[in-house]
Amino acid sequence: MEITKTEKLRKKLHEIIYEADTPFGKLFDLILLLLIIISIVAVMLESVASIRLVYGKELAIIEWIITVFFTLEYIGRVIAVKKPLKYIFSFYGIIDLLATLPTYVDLLFPGLHFLVSLRAVRLLRIFRILKLVHFVGASNQLVYALKKSRLKIAVFLFSVIVLCIILGTIMYMIEGPESGFTSIPMSIYWTIVTLTTVGFGDITPVTPFGQFVSMIIMILGYGIIAVPTGLVTAEFMSKGRTVHENTQVCPNCSADHHRDDAKYCYHCGHTL
Amino acid sequence: MEITKTEKLRKKLHEIIYEADTPFGKLFDLILLLLIIISIVAVMLESVASIRLVYGKELAIIEWIITVFFTLEYIGRVIAVKKPLKYIFSFYGIIDLLATLPTYVDLLFPGLHFLVSLRAVRLLRIFRILKLVHFVGASNQLVYALKKSRLKIAVFLFSVIVLCIILGTIMYMIEGPESGFTSIPMSIYWTIVTLTTVGFGDITPVTPFGQFVSMIIMILGYGIIAVPTGLVTAEFMSKGRTVHENTQVCPNCSADHHRDDAKYCYHCGHTL
Amino acid sequence: MEITKTEKLRKKLHEIIYEADTPFGKLFDLILLLLIIISIVAVMLESVASIRLVYGKELAIIEWIITVFFTLEYIGRVIAVKKPLKYIFSFYGIIDLLATLPTYVDLLFPGLHFLVSLRAVRLLRIFRILKLVHFVGASNQLVYALKKSRLKIAVFLFSVIVLCIILGTIMYMIEGPESGFTSIPMSIYWTIVTLTTVGFGDITPVTPFGQFVSMIIMILGYGIIAVPTGLVTAEFMSKGRTVHENTQVCPNCSADHHRDDAKYCYHCGHTL
Amino acid sequence: MEITKTEKLRKKLHEIIYEADTPFGKLFDLILLLLIIISIVAVMLESVASIRLVYGKELAIIEWIITVFFTLEYIGRVIAVKKPLKYIFSFYGIIDLLATLPTYVDLLFPGLHFLVSLRAVRLLRIFRILKLVHFVGASNQLVYALKKSRLKIAVFLFSVIVLCIILGTIMYMIEGPESGFTSIPMSIYWTIVTLTTVGFGDITPVTPFGQFVSMIIMILGYGIIAVPTGLVTAEFMSKGRTVHENTQVCPNCSADHHRDDAKYCYHCGHTL
Repeated sequence: MEITKTEKLRKKLHEIIYEADTPFGKLFDLILLLLIIISIVAVMLESVASIRLVYGKELAIIEWIITVFFTLEYIGRVIAVKKPLKYIFSFYGIIDLLATLPTYVDLLFPGLHFLVSLRAVRLLRIFRILKLVHFVGASNQLVYALKKSRLKIAVFLFSVIVLCIILGTIMYMIEGPESGFTSIPMSIYWTIVTLTTVGFGDITPVTPFGQFVSMIIMILGYGIIAVPTGLVTAEFMSKGRTVHENTQVCPNCSADHHRDDAKYCYHCGHTL
Repeated sequence: MEITKTEKLRKKLHEIIYEADTPFGKLFDLILLLLIIISIVAVMLESVASIRLVYGKELAIIEWIITVFFTLEYIGRVIAVKKPLKYIFSFYGIIDLLATLPTYVDLLFPGLHFLVSLRAVRLLRIFRILKLVHFVGASNQLVYALKKSRLKIAVFLFSVIVLCIILGTIMYMIEGPESGFTSIPMSIYWTIVTLTTVGFGDITPVTPFGQFVSMIIMILGYGIIAVPTGLVTAEFMSKGRTVHENTQVCPNCSADHHRDDAKYCYHCGHTL
Repeated sequence: MEITKTEKLRKKLHEIIYEADTPFGKLFDLILLLLIIISIVAVMLESVASIRLVYGKELAIIEWIITVFFTLEYIGRVIAVKKPLKYIFSFYGIIDLLATLPTYVDLLFPGLHFLVSLRAVRLLRIFRILKLVHFVGASNQLVYALKKSRLKIAVFLFSVIVLCIILGTIMYMIEGPESGFTSIPMSIYWTIVTLTTVGFGDITPVTPFGQFVSMIIMILGYGIIAVPTGLVTAEFMSKGRTVHENTQVCPNCSADHHRDDAKYCYHCGHTL
Repeated sequence: MEITKTEKLRKKLHEIIYEADTPFGKLFDLILLLLIIISIVAVMLESVASIRLVYGKELAIIEWIITVFFTLEYIGRVIAVKKPLKYIFSFYGIIDLLATLPTYVDLLFPGLHFLVSLRAVRLLRIFRILKLVHFVGASNQLVYALKKSRLKIAVFLFSVIVLCIILGTIMYMIEGPESGFTSIPMSIYWTIVTLTTVGFGDITPVTPFGQFVSMIIMILGYGIIAVPTGLVTAEFMSKGRTVHENTQVCPNCSADHHRDDAKYCYHCGHTL
């Protein structure tokens, strides 16, 4: 009987922490969302020297309250699921752990204080809460379109990187260390800054020939941005179109990509 | 009888101020458009120190003439409509008030002189005048396409902001205050400057690892710009398509892709 | 008989200068193209102080040879056409004149030497020569797509400019002259630099609130670039689709935009 | 008989070096890929002054091992093909030679040490190896879409360059050498930096009129980026569409939008 009671408690806990249909579940999510935002704002403010000097103590207290809550929540999550190990090593399990650890590490090893900013990963927890909300329908479409054009985007990015390495080396040979192109990696950094049209201006070509090659790189960067845009757009559009296709395969001739409303195979005329 | 007369006057006033079909209404709109543009130019010129020194007096006179006209117009608008309160608290009602207030505030409280630039909101009044003009048909389509992809754009922007906060924190940990990354908010500012390919160059990474992460951020920014473009393009296109064609098929000759307003088959002349 | 002879000569001249089908016409175009390019390179090189010092004389000689040729060509063009005035006041007529004038002006009024760079307009003459070449078919499509989305692009650009004026004024009020935002026009310049993602970095916000507004401007600029792209893409695509429309008008009911293969009016069923 | 043996050996060599179906061929490609990457990393590291000082010797040894391997591979490739000259003067033949030469040149003529960076062209060899791998299907589509819109992109780029030359000259006349616009080529460089929205900030306009023209250039650059994007997107889309559907209508049931390779109606099974 004891076991059943614990089981019931776990079910209750699971409902509150993991689900968003019950009033308590909704309230829990809301509090969590609020605490994450407060926590992120606190982390940000603490990094500003002038604010840390004046409100350092208050921020530390807020930090500890939130850390304790997150720790309890983490323990709750581990208890509430049936397969705790699966949760612990899942993406969100690791994020949840990383959301609490930095504060403890800071207490035990003050030398690792710079790790404290790692708490910013707490922000990623927002995505779990949002998962339970309606408006993610739109994001599903986004992710789907990106996933479909993933391979083409990879080929494009790979080509861009190869291009940047070669153009960067050429710029290094042309400009040399005097103009700030101190090494090939530095030149590649500059080429990426230029090709992506960011253009910091921390390093700029000074020789006429270097400026000429820069012009080519800039126009190239201005032109090839059309490629990923074209890819993603085409995917977005074709998605609308391929909705009418289904995944059926003809039992007679194995032809696929049938229309959704197809009754007969377009290839052999066999009934689907 | 008195009331009917006032009523008539109000109707006349409404015609002049709010409508653009009558010659007087058109003239009124034209004068308003002109005054707004003169006013904006005056506000701009007054902010240039060298011009203010020489022409300060003339600009002040122009300013007062325009303010008086706008004030009278505002009073006229309140009188001319049947539900004055609804107008006063509408978007354009507030803009109209804000267009006159700063000059009076400056007279009464010279200490609040910096508010004088608020007069630039007068520019928004142009949109009301344009509403009455033909060429807004094009802008309707624009607004419609943007509205339809609003939710997806919101999801995209939210993801970009979360990305910038996390990447900004990472850059703060890598670079530190010595390189200008003085705090997390400052680092986030830099990350947005970089991801959006603006690239001011007021802060730039100096450590090799920081430059490496910068390259990733830049290529990311260069790549993900495809997403909003793809979204809006897809929306523009899908709209354009559904407007003109229907899915009817001619009962006589089976021709398809008829125009939406077609009554007869374009192929055999049979009634649809 | 005399008149017929002059007429013949003029026809011959017209063939050489204006047409590109005969061998002489082709040769003439080729020489012209070459001279324009040489001339532009000479104008560029002359503006470089170190080159002017050494090769100033040679460049001046080249300049005079080209100017004399262009002058003779201009006279030839005026003679060769039937309506000289129409040519003189046409777009290319004015360009042709502007291509020769600066050199003479420089000779007569040395004080106007800076006008000499106006010779760069000669470059526009290249477009006339290219008009006679095959590869302009592609550019026609480009121009057509741009023309069709002209109105929408105008609405978009107008909104962007209004946005920049208002945001620029806000930034002027926030940052003030100390940060380089010395006047409203200067702030608007900065806002356009930022919104278009150019980001020179000659002026940058220094107050936290100014940086916050900057972030909004940058993300805005990063997002709304999708709009013109979407517009032009949609126009490019829809063009491909509207190819199937013809310019016929129904003889019975005056309906237009018929499909290319239509035999009967889609509106009244009358034979087309 | 001797000849047949050499022939056999050559066939074997061809299999290993040029093909990727056999285990040896795969292994060879893998080793090559690894060596190229190691070599590129070594070239990069060697260009960093601080690393060269400490690990210069080790990097030189790695370099020589790789160069010897590449030389043997080059000889192998020449032997293995039937038409060695065709290979030697092919694109990859020249790249392969350039991948080995710089090291020898450096040994023989230490004065040409700067040529050593040319070894970065080795990176291009990666593309040959990838050609043998599946994921290039995606890149084929990319290349195909780019090839189809090649002419339009050329027209666009040519117009942009002409625009930049003319705008650059105008900016030179407005700003003059005092603001950093020292010559027309320099002004053109600045115009390209601005129009492509790179915006280094090494040169910036200082006169009000120069800043006004800059604003026009920036908005122009922000707007016309839509053109290449629109071109490539339209090409991507039109390709996808024409591949899959035809305009046939079923003679039995009037269903349309059949696949290009359909032999039977997907709706009623009737022969098309």
